[in-house]
Amino acid sequence: MTVNTAVAADHHAPAITAQLAHFVSQHPTQGWSDAVEHEAHRTFLNWLGCAIGAANHEAVDAALAAVQMLAPAPQATLAGRKERVDMANAALINGISSHTFDYDDTHLKTIIHPAGPVASAVMALAEHQSSSGRQVIDAIVLGIDVACRMGNLVYPEHYDRGWHITGSTGMLGSAAACARLLGLDAARTQMALGIAASQPVGLREQFGTMTKPFHPGAAAKAGLMSALLARHGFTSSRRALEAPRGLMQVFSDKTDWAEAQDELGQRFEISFNAYKPFACGIVIHPAIDACVQLRNQHALTADQIARITVRAHPLVQELTGKKTPQTGLESKFSVFHSCAVAIMKGQAGEHEYADDVVRSPEVIALRDRVELVVDRQIHEASVDVTIETTDGRSLHIFIERAIGSLEKPMTNELLKAKFVDQSAPILGEVQAEQAWLVCMGLANQPDLKTVLKSLSPV
Amino acid sequence: MTVNTAVAADHHAPAITAQLAHFVSQHPTQGWSDAVEHEAHRTFLNWLGCAIGAANHEAVDAALAAVQMLAPAPQATLAGRKERVDMANAALINGISSHTFDYDDTHLKTIIHPAGPVASAVMALAEHQSSSGRQVIDAIVLGIDVACRMGNLVYPEHYDRGWHITGSTGMLGSAAACARLLGLDAARTQMALGIAASQPVGLREQFGTMTKPFHPGAAAKAGLMSALLARHGFTSSRRALEAPRGLMQVFSDKTDWAEAQDELGQRFEISFNAYKPFACGIVIHPAIDACVQLRNQHALTADQIARITVRAHPLVQELTGKKTPQTGLESKFSVFHSCAVAIMKGQAGEHEYADDVVRSPEVIALRDRVELVVDRQIHEASVDVTIETTDGRSLHIFIERAIGSLEKPMTNELLKAKFVDQSAPILGEVQAEQAWLVCMGLANQPDLKTVLKSLSPV
Repeated sequence: MTVNTAVAADHHAPAITAQLAHFVSQHPTQGWSDAVEHEAHRTFLNWLGCAIGAANHEAVDAALAAVQMLAPAPQATLAGRKERVDMANAALINGISSHTFDYDDTHLKTIIHPAGPVASAVMALAEHQSSSGRQVIDAIVLGIDVACRMGNLVYPEHYDRGWHITGSTGMLGSAAACARLLGLDAARTQMALGIAASQPVGLREQFGTMTKPFHPGAAAKAGLMSALLARHGFTSSRRALEAPRGLMQVFSDKTDWAEAQDELGQRFEISFNAYKPFACGIVIHPAIDACVQLRNQHALTADQIARITVRAHPLVQELTGKKTPQTGLESKFSVFHSCAVAIMKGQAGEHEYADDVVRSPEVIALRDRVELVVDRQIHEASVDVTIETTDGRSLHIFIERAIGSLEKPMTNELLKAKFVDQSAPILGEVQAEQAWLVCMGLANQPDLKTVLKSLSPV
Repeated sequence: MTVNTAVAADHHAPAITAQLAHFVSQHPTQGWSDAVEHEAHRTFLNWLGCAIGAANHEAVDAALAAVQMLAPAPQATLAGRKERVDMANAALINGISSHTFDYDDTHLKTIIHPAGPVASAVMALAEHQSSSGRQVIDAIVLGIDVACRMGNLVYPEHYDRGWHITGSTGMLGSAAACARLLGLDAARTQMALGIAASQPVGLREQFGTMTKPFHPGAAAKAGLMSALLARHGFTSSRRALEAPRGLMQVFSDKTDWAEAQDELGQRFEISFNAYKPFACGIVIHPAIDACVQLRNQHALTADQIARITVRAHPLVQELTGKKTPQTGLESKFSVFHSCAVAIMKGQAGEHEYADDVVRSPEVIALRDRVELVVDRQIHEASVDVTIETTDGRSLHIFIERAIGSLEKPMTNELLKAKFVDQSAPILGEVQAEQAWLVCMGLANQPDLKTVLKSLSPV
C-alpha cells in the first residue's frame, strides 16, 4: 500500500458531511428571505423553459430510446413530452434536455449549472410521492446550496483539472434535495450524501457532444438513487466528502472547507444564480445587449444599418470570432451573426441560432456589415458599440455589464419572454403562458397536478 | 479560463478510445487460447457463486428495496433471488451482491475485481436479448480486457489518490462488453466508451460500508446504459479516454498508454485473474493454507493442538492482528480466528466468519492457542507455521505462495467447493451442483434459459 505523495492529505478536515446533512434535514421550511424564495421560482422556471424547449432534440430522443429499452414504469412526467418514465430516468432525461441548448442557469462563482441536477431529480421524485409545491421549492433551495457550496470549495482547481463541475458536484445537490423531499433524518441524509459522493459525473472533454448535457442528467439520477438507497438503510462513509480519501480531496487539490460552513442557513447560493438572456457563449452577451438596446431606442431595421463596430476584449475575438458560420451550432460562436440577429429580431434566443436563420441572405448581408475591433482596455464583460446608419447618423452605446449578469439580472419580464419563446413551440402560446403563471406560484400549490398538467403537450 | 499547472497535459496521447473500440467490435469470437477460454468460465463461476452467496445480505435487500420504488419491469434475473428487475438495475444489484463479501476475483496487477462490473452487466443484457452462451463469454473476455488494461494504464497512482479502481475503470469494461453484446460497430462502441468515461464510480473511503460493493454494481449499470445510449445514436468525445481533459489524464498523473495497446488481442488480462479461496484479507491466506495442509496431512482435530506458531511478515500483524474479534466482520481481520477455523473446519469460507462461529467457545479456545511471530525475513505472501500437538509432535510447513495466488491458482475442484459452499444454502445442494455443471459449459449453451433457471431459488 502506498500513499498519495503529490499533496499532503488533510486529516483534520471538518465534518462537513455531517454538518450539511444536519442542515439539509433540519433547516426550517422557507427559512430564508423573500428574495431567495423568489429566486428559487425564477431558477425553477428558467430550468423548466430550457427543458421544454429542447424536449424534441435528437439528444433527448436518443436518451429516451435507450431508457425505453428498460420498459420503465410511467411514474414521472418528461417536460415538453407526452411519454412518461420511471422517476430515476425522468430525472436523467429532464436533466439532459435542460442543458442541451446550454441556455440554462449559471452559478457565476463556479460556472455550475445547478438547476439541471437538482430540479430534474426533485420534480421526478415529487411527482411520484405527491409532494407539495412548498416542499419542491424547499428541496431546490437546499439542494442547490449544497451543490454550489461544494463547487466553491474546490473551484477553480477541480474545474481546471478537467471535471465538468455541474455533474461532478451536482449529484450531491440532487442527493441532498431528494433526501429532504423524502423526509430523511440527518443520519440517513448523511448516508445519501455519502453514496452520491462515489458517483461524480462529467469531463470537460465532452463539451460539444451529447454527453455534456448527459452530465447534469446523470447527476440528477445518481443523487435521486442515492437518496432512495439511504432511505432503505444503505450505508456509506460518514466522512465521504472530507476524509483524506473522500471525494473533495480525491478530485481537487484545493479544499476550502469554510465554503461548506460559512453562513450556512443564512447565505444561500441560489442568490448568485444567473440566467442567460441569449442562447450563445456568454462573452457575446454584452454585444447583443448593446445592439438590442440601440435597435429599440432608435427603431432600427436591417436596411438602415451601414456598419456596426463592436469594440471588445480580445477574448471575444478568440472565442467567438467566426466570421462566416455555416450551421446553427457554429453561429453560437459568432459575434457577427449574433449582432445581426439582435438588430433584426430584437433577441437572440434558440430560434435565432437555427440553421435556416444562419443561412438566410438577409442575416448574412447584415452580418457582413459587423466589424470587431479588439481593445484590451475594455473589460471582457463590457462592450462599446457604434452603429452608423445609412442616413448618416452615428449611434453609440457602452455596456458596462450585460443583461443577465449578477449586476443587471434578467427582469421577470425578460425571463418570461425567454420561457414563452422556448416553450410555446412545444406547448402552444396559451399553455406556455399558463405554465409561467402556475409555476411563479409554485410554493403555494398544495400539490403538483396543475403544474405537471401545464408542462406536457396536450 | 486557466490550465492545470500541476502536470503538463499530454496532447500526443495515442487514440486509445478508437483503438479499443475497434478491438472490442472486431475481434473474432473465441479469438484466444483454450486457457483464456477456460479462465473466462472460472471467472464467471466465481462471480456467480459470490453473487448467489450474498443474495440475501442486508446490502442487497436495501438496494433492491430502493430499486423497487421505480416499479422496474421484470426483465432480468437476480442471482440467488426470485425477484426480477429491469436489466440496468439487475446489473446494479448483481454487481453489489457479487462484491458484498469481498470474496470475488482479483486482477492481481491492479487489484481490480473485474467480474463484478462486467459479468453483472453482461448477464442482465444477455438475458433480455436472448444472447447465446458464446456471446456472453466473448463479451466477458473483452470487457475485462478493457477494464484491466485501463487499470494497468493508471495503477498505482490512480488507486493511491483514493479511487476504488474496480468501479472507476469498471464502467469502461461494462460499456465495452455490452457494446459487444449489442453488436455495435466500432464508431458506436467508441461512443459507448466515451459516455462511460464520464461516469467513474468509487472512493476507497467507502471501504467497510455498503457503498464499497455498490461501486462494481453502479459501474455495471453505468456501462450498460452507456452502451444502450450509444446504440441509439447518443454521442460523446472520440478521445474521451486519452485527451488532455479525458478520463485518464483527469483522474491519474500516471498514464502508461502502452498498457492499452501492447499485445492487444494476443495477451488477455483475464489470464491474470485470481480467485480467493478464503473469505478474508489476502495477507492471512498463506497462514490458512498452511493450517489446512497440516490438518489434512495429519488428520488433526482441535483437541490435539497445543500451540500454533505463525511466523509472518509484519504486515500480517498490522492488518490482521486482532486477538479477540467479537463479530464476523472483525474476525476477517484476525489471523488467530482464521487459523483456528482452518484447523477445525478445513476451510475458511464465508460461513467460517459468521458471528456465531466467532463466539463459539471451541473456536475461541483454539484461537487463544495461536501465536503470531513477526519476521521481516519472510515475504508478505509467504508464511512459516509450526504446530505443536498435545502428544508432543512438532509439525512444520513453509508456504512460499498460498493457494489462490497466480503461482498456485485455485484448482477447479477447490473453485467448485467454494461455489457450492456459497450457493448451496440458497439454491440447495442439488441445484448448486447443477449450476456448476451448466455454467462450466456456458460457451456451448445456445441460449441462457438453462443457466438462468439454475441460478434462482425455486
